[in-house]
Amino acid sequence: MNSYTTKSLLAGEIAAGSPVQIKGWVRTRRDSKAGISFISVNDGSSFDSLQAVVPSSLENYETEVLKLGAGCSVIIEGELVESQGQGQRFEIQASRVEVVGWVDDPETYPIAKKHHSFEYLRTVAHLRPRTNAFGAITRVRTTLANAVHNFFYQKGFQWINTPLITASDCEGAGELFRVSTLDMANLPRNEQGAIDYTEDFFGRESFLTVSGQLNVEAYCLAMSNVYTFGPTFRAENSNTSRHLAEFWMIEPEIAFATLDDCADLAEEMLKHLFKTVLDERAEDMAFFAQRIDKEAISRLEHVANSAFERMDYSEAISILEKCGKSFEYPVKWGLDLQSEHERFLAEEYVGRPVVLMNYPKEIKAFYMRLNDDQRTVAAMDVLAPGIGEIIGGSQREERLDVLDRRMAEVGLGQELGWYRDLRRYGTVPHGGFGLGFERLINYVTGMENIRDAIPFPRTPKSAPF
Amino acid sequence: MNSYTTKSLLAGEIAAGSPVQIKGWVRTRRDSKAGISFISVNDGSSFDSLQAVVPSSLENYETEVLKLGAGCSVIIEGELVESQGQGQRFEIQASRVEVVGWVDDPETYPIAKKHHSFEYLRTVAHLRPRTNAFGAITRVRTTLANAVHNFFYQKGFQWINTPLITASDCEGAGELFRVSTLDMANLPRNEQGAIDYTEDFFGRESFLTVSGQLNVEAYCLAMSNVYTFGPTFRAENSNTSRHLAEFWMIEPEIAFATLDDCADLAEEMLKHLFKTVLDERAEDMAFFAQRIDKEAISRLEHVANSAFERMDYSEAISILEKCGKSFEYPVKWGLDLQSEHERFLAEEYVGRPVVLMNYPKEIKAFYMRLNDDQRTVAAMDVLAPGIGEIIGGSQREERLDVLDRRMAEVGLGQELGWYRDLRRYGTVPHGGFGLGFERLINYVTGMENIRDAIPFPRTPKSAPF
Repeated sequence: MNSYTTKSLLAGEIAAGSPVQIKGWVRTRRDSKAGISFISVNDGSSFDSLQAVVPSSLENYETEVLKLGAGCSVIIEGELVESQGQGQRFEIQASRVEVVGWVDDPETYPIAKKHHSFEYLRTVAHLRPRTNAFGAITRVRTTLANAVHNFFYQKGFQWINTPLITASDCEGAGELFRVSTLDMANLPRNEQGAIDYTEDFFGRESFLTVSGQLNVEAYCLAMSNVYTFGPTFRAENSNTSRHLAEFWMIEPEIAFATLDDCADLAEEMLKHLFKTVLDERAEDMAFFAQRIDKEAISRLEHVANSAFERMDYSEAISILEKCGKSFEYPVKWGLDLQSEHERFLAEEYVGRPVVLMNYPKEIKAFYMRLNDDQRTVAAMDVLAPGIGEIIGGSQREERLDVLDRRMAEVGLGQELGWYRDLRRYGTVPHGGFGLGFERLINYVTGMENIRDAIPFPRTPKSAPF
Repeated sequence: MNSYTTKSLLAGEIAAGSPVQIKGWVRTRRDSKAGISFISVNDGSSFDSLQAVVPSSLENYETEVLKLGAGCSVIIEGELVESQGQGQRFEIQASRVEVVGWVDDPETYPIAKKHHSFEYLRTVAHLRPRTNAFGAITRVRTTLANAVHNFFYQKGFQWINTPLITASDCEGAGELFRVSTLDMANLPRNEQGAIDYTEDFFGRESFLTVSGQLNVEAYCLAMSNVYTFGPTFRAENSNTSRHLAEFWMIEPEIAFATLDDCADLAEEMLKHLFKTVLDERAEDMAFFAQRIDKEAISRLEHVANSAFERMDYSEAISILEKCGKSFEYPVKWGLDLQSEHERFLAEEYVGRPVVLMNYPKEIKAFYMRLNDDQRTVAAMDVLAPGIGEIIGGSQREERLDVLDRRMAEVGLGQELGWYRDLRRYGTVPHGGFGLGFERLINYVTGMENIRDAIPFPRTPKSAPF
């Protein structure tokens, strides 16, 4: 007998009347007085579970079927029939129920039928994919990741794996995790008594990367259109809903490109991603709209169908100063914008996504291209309604003399000789941006906590798996 | 004037006679006595460069064009014409040449026109993507990575990001990199004088992962078909052509599955990947066959069109003992096979890929399913002609009591409570395998050194970027 996913059966891909087999995990069991049990089975392929109607005539009905509960694994065979009741279009009239795995002590099964808080589920992260919410999040992640890769592949971008263990702190973006194979109990010392990192694995102090951008520029200046999609790490000791110790980042980098080209690419990419997830994950998105955030679908549709506004940072400051609204954080030229400012601009003032451009150089990284005014750099943030900044990027400083001055200003020395080389040999205007994948998942699903946007949440003092 | 990639122009996507612009880097310049220069330009989109024919009538011909050399960045405009000479079908009759970036001191430009050894190129890894070989490797990597994701997406697999910082050493597979935020110069001590890892970021000793398999099983036992495609780390202090400190791994995991199902999936996946790269990267593969390994194409075609042989480890030992060939390493039931044995089986004895199955439990990991004979486990290695083992996998031990015995045998304690949980709650037969992405790249391209299969090579004592 052929085995099918619940997705294909629920979608009507198999004709009613066919003999079918499904394999999955019981979500619920309900028994009717007429001696029939209704068992809903989920195999992860679809949001909805498939219902099996199990008659009491099965030989293991009393001994096994009536003992099934949430989490048990089963193989069910029978005839696919059109459902008489409400809900799904199809169900299985079961002729055989095989219990593959029981739940050891159902009373203490951490993921029982009842509703659990997301906070509780983080403590049983190895079991939370068995819930509706995390099944949906996982499918949305997969669809978005695949859409990212295909978006760039269709456009001829090369996927570059940049080093994860690195000697450079790309932008002083946060606390670093040290990576070492030195014997902590017996650290080698040099003649001055300092720890001798020449004895370490790479022969020098090494850390987990905070961004692949500097590295990917080397490939950009050879192959024009490239991107990274890989993990990055921040050892920020903050147990908030916005920080992850490890998270994934998408960082495209394009050659012969200005800041406007970067903004165009960001807009095109976001629209493509949102259209794809609305199209391919309609069931899961309906769940998020119903249970998590009623704007989940309309927000994506709005962004996908809006022209992104472009605005200079200086103009934004002027707007914020004159808008008459009172903000918690100060607004002044030279200060970075806070989420409340960004959301006002995108949600209230413009009512569409906004690409803010040309920030004061003092609040941006050394590699961003200095504008002719000598006080701003060609940086951009994409502000989206409902979240604020979702993408940050810039045109890079491609002029060696200007880069050298900027590096000297921020105290960077010769360790970036290879990065300088890129400007010595056939430099071109280029730029790119970064999009945090988990932040994207939060935005798409309406889930507020970033620890619910990654399969295994990691925070300070939380013992890793 | 519209800008095009060299790929689209060389492929004839634009009609001859059209005005076109290209942007890229000069590979070569040749001057004819008739006062014409031929400049080949590469933008990374295609293996072949596009030739621009530059007449001496251009106003910057003497001052700039005649000074162009390898590595300079240019924008060239002109008319796309059918090529009169041999080689490419199309070329550009240039009407404008704009030099965007010069090469600072062409005499010392590390990537000049002449042939470089791969060993040398590893020392200028930030510039090697500008060579034919590394351009081709990069495009092949991108195509294979995309094919991996699409293969699994089409089959309904979920992509799972497993933790990269971990507390568990999955299989004792190698030396670990420690990850820490402790102040090395002033390590906290507990009352016993030992280093107090409760003060560390995650509250315990943490390392970079060697495999996502144990973690991905948690998602497999909820969503049936899942895979990881992410980085893994091994701090093996061996500076060989086979080891990388960081490399990427593809690890699918399937539920309600036996070892045969895993072998089926491995065979289907490899064939799909090889067909895709032969189809989509024909130019690059032609380069590898011509310059690196004359079997590069035929080997992939052979594997893509062969039924994989399945053979028990015990049978393989018997064949190797009787074959009359003298091997460097001993052959005996209970010993692991070496590359010479694996290649003999795949290349000479069977002449096709071989899936070797059911290895002695002593030489395999604790999580592999114990067979009824009590002395072998349901492990498999896929042996491919030309390389030996390319995939390793197993059915996992899904029976809690057997797993507990195996864990006790190898001295594993309670730290894997979450892993045991998966067997307590709706366990099912399941399994999967791992394919090292860089090893795959080596196999496909014929490049021998694994440091040439990753964008930025990392080895012990090599200062990371």
